[in-house]
Amino acid sequence: MNYRLIEGGGVTAPKGFSAGAVYMAIKKRANEKPDVAILYSEHPAACAACFTTNKFCAAPVLLGREILKKGKARAVVINSGNANAATGEQGIADARAVQHLAEELLGLGEDEVFVSSTGVIGQRLPVEKVMEGVRRVVPILSPANGSEAAYAIMTTDLVRKEVAYELELSGGTVRVGAMAKGSGMIHPNMATLLSYVTTDAKIEAPELQRMLSAACEKSFNMLTVDGDTSTNDSLFLLANGASGVELRTEEDREAMAKIVELICIDMARRIAADGEGATHLLEVQAYELPTEHDARLVARSIAGSNLFKCALFGRDANWGRIMAAAGYSGADVDPTHADCIIRSPAGEVQVMEDGFGTNFSEELAKKVLTEHDITVIVRFHQGQGCAKAFGCDLTYDYVKINGDYRS
Amino acid sequence: MNYRLIEGGGVTAPKGFSAGAVYMAIKKRANEKPDVAILYSEHPAACAACFTTNKFCAAPVLLGREILKKGKARAVVINSGNANAATGEQGIADARAVQHLAEELLGLGEDEVFVSSTGVIGQRLPVEKVMEGVRRVVPILSPANGSEAAYAIMTTDLVRKEVAYELELSGGTVRVGAMAKGSGMIHPNMATLLSYVTTDAKIEAPELQRMLSAACEKSFNMLTVDGDTSTNDSLFLLANGASGVELRTEEDREAMAKIVELICIDMARRIAADGEGATHLLEVQAYELPTEHDARLVARSIAGSNLFKCALFGRDANWGRIMAAAGYSGADVDPTHADCIIRSPAGEVQVMEDGFGTNFSEELAKKVLTEHDITVIVRFHQGQGCAKAFGCDLTYDYVKINGDYRS
Repeated sequence: MNYRLIEGGGVTAPKGFSAGAVYMAIKKRANEKPDVAILYSEHPAACAACFTTNKFCAAPVLLGREILKKGKARAVVINSGNANAATGEQGIADARAVQHLAEELLGLGEDEVFVSSTGVIGQRLPVEKVMEGVRRVVPILSPANGSEAAYAIMTTDLVRKEVAYELELSGGTVRVGAMAKGSGMIHPNMATLLSYVTTDAKIEAPELQRMLSAACEKSFNMLTVDGDTSTNDSLFLLANGASGVELRTEEDREAMAKIVELICIDMARRIAADGEGATHLLEVQAYELPTEHDARLVARSIAGSNLFKCALFGRDANWGRIMAAAGYSGADVDPTHADCIIRSPAGEVQVMEDGFGTNFSEELAKKVLTEHDITVIVRFHQGQGCAKAFGCDLTYDYVKINGDYRS
Repeated sequence: MNYRLIEGGGVTAPKGFSAGAVYMAIKKRANEKPDVAILYSEHPAACAACFTTNKFCAAPVLLGREILKKGKARAVVINSGNANAATGEQGIADARAVQHLAEELLGLGEDEVFVSSTGVIGQRLPVEKVMEGVRRVVPILSPANGSEAAYAIMTTDLVRKEVAYELELSGGTVRVGAMAKGSGMIHPNMATLLSYVTTDAKIEAPELQRMLSAACEKSFNMLTVDGDTSTNDSLFLLANGASGVELRTEEDREAMAKIVELICIDMARRIAADGEGATHLLEVQAYELPTEHDARLVARSIAGSNLFKCALFGRDANWGRIMAAAGYSGADVDPTHADCIIRSPAGEVQVMEDGFGTNFSEELAKKVLTEHDITVIVRFHQGQGCAKAFGCDLTYDYVKINGDYRS
């Protein structure tokens, strides 16, 4: 697979995509950060999407599921500051109004525009503000504005999350770009995360959906910040074919699927690293479980354990909590021969070997845990199943941020 | 049902039970709090128990499951400061050594003594200290020492948890007492909680187990402090028949089952209120779900939501998080006509009505949330299923306590 990073690239790095954003004070912000954005494809695009599994999904998600049935789309209107969730029929009508206005101003047909919202739940969307935002953004849509859109979709995020790659296929070069937001209310399956992946490769909707769903399983569905699954999570993949390059060979298909997975994992890791209040990025690697399903359960359970997340914050190599979390994960897991290693750029420490705690150096463990990026590796010698999960530590700041979010 | 509280009563309030405790520095403590305790019945007692569902259960739990098969027991040796978990064959041998010494010193037959341990995971039980503790406690066993035992089993608990009632049955008066510990690593099903219920009523083991399992479902299995299920959770019920009173009628059976449930719920609430770092006790009441199972899922999901627990700490009536948690609970739940009320001794505020947020007074909501005991009531108008769950808020102190537990 031949690919390379596009420096500073994002969702408009693939040909034929443009974006724009403005500040409409959907939520009052001192820094007047943009909060209404549009991502637009000049050409018709095949589309795929994965939405929240929360039963109380937001109006944009209900609408999105309808639009997705057609398998094609040209644009997404995104607002931060209000989730348009728990807003009933009014919420649907508001989302529709935004959609229809964008379709009209962009000269598109029916159901070619998705909408996404993120922010506070249970307050009516300030639909006039969002619509005025659409009016202002349409004239300024540009391939140069991808990063502005990535900024606009942020809520409690501290950093923009965007990336793009060039990929060589048998028929030529294609580009794949992405932007994402997400910080709190992050848990499998999907979370208050919005993520948009674009490509100028030519791919039909059914294949696109298979790729995206598979990538989602390995990335966003293995990501947990706080165990809370949001009402609004949405992951989109738009393929507009502007490169003129199709997937002709099995290698092309594999390479494209791989790059989509790589980008989704990259976005998931960035969201974990930017988890509300987080001081550590945690990657959990579970190996040699009876099945992949068991490994996924174990990895996610460890990444999601409040107790271990607190220990991580305290730089405490409390492996008993790692094993306890594996034990209650629901997986077919046997601790008898378990190994556990904690690794970071500062080194690694084996805290458990063949089912027992080792006499590891607490000093070394502290040193390892001083780093930002921490990997926990568990191995159970029960089979071939393996999986990775992504998370972060639980800190004072998480409590602070979520103790007065609305005010 | 005719019952009354026994003031200051606990696990030795029923006839024929005695207890004792000493400080053996299992974990070094400045206050030299006792950490090895024995609960003893002068008469053979039928017994029932519920143990952790964590796959990595501790040595005392593995042993306890064996002993439980006989359905009778005379004593429990309990230590705090070390969980004897993730200790392999050595852990079993250590637990057996403690058991056998207690059986010998108390003049009991084989497998008449349970052991319980709570504390740090993955370090070998200091078995000599525990055995020396047993030698010192046996001579001082007394009905007057129930409260000492309740003190000895505490780890991060701030308060002792004990209660006792007198209950009138058709054949005479019986007593039911209890003590419990638990503060962190508390989640369905069962958690680092140890709970001991005693009665001098005469009840056979199978009936006792049915009562206890049913009560556990309504109490400890509806309790969540942090979503982490411990390796050591154990709930015991010993019935020694010392009152000479049997369950003769259906009313007797119902009354006894009810008082056991009441006591278990009482202990669960006290554990929630004493949750690590907690400033609020949270009771969630879920009504009118399609089934009781759905109601249980909804109630526990709300009580366990990190985001809502932070909002509670911040006294923020963030009902969107309540509904989001209901939505991802896995229950068959429909928000269309949902009502939500937040209640405390200071009053109540309806934050959601017939599926929509109300224009509630934020001032009143703040006032309601200032109280320690908070009840969240959700009603979905979908059926007859109802359930209650117990929890607490998520605070800076939870993070602090669990950031440096081992040190």
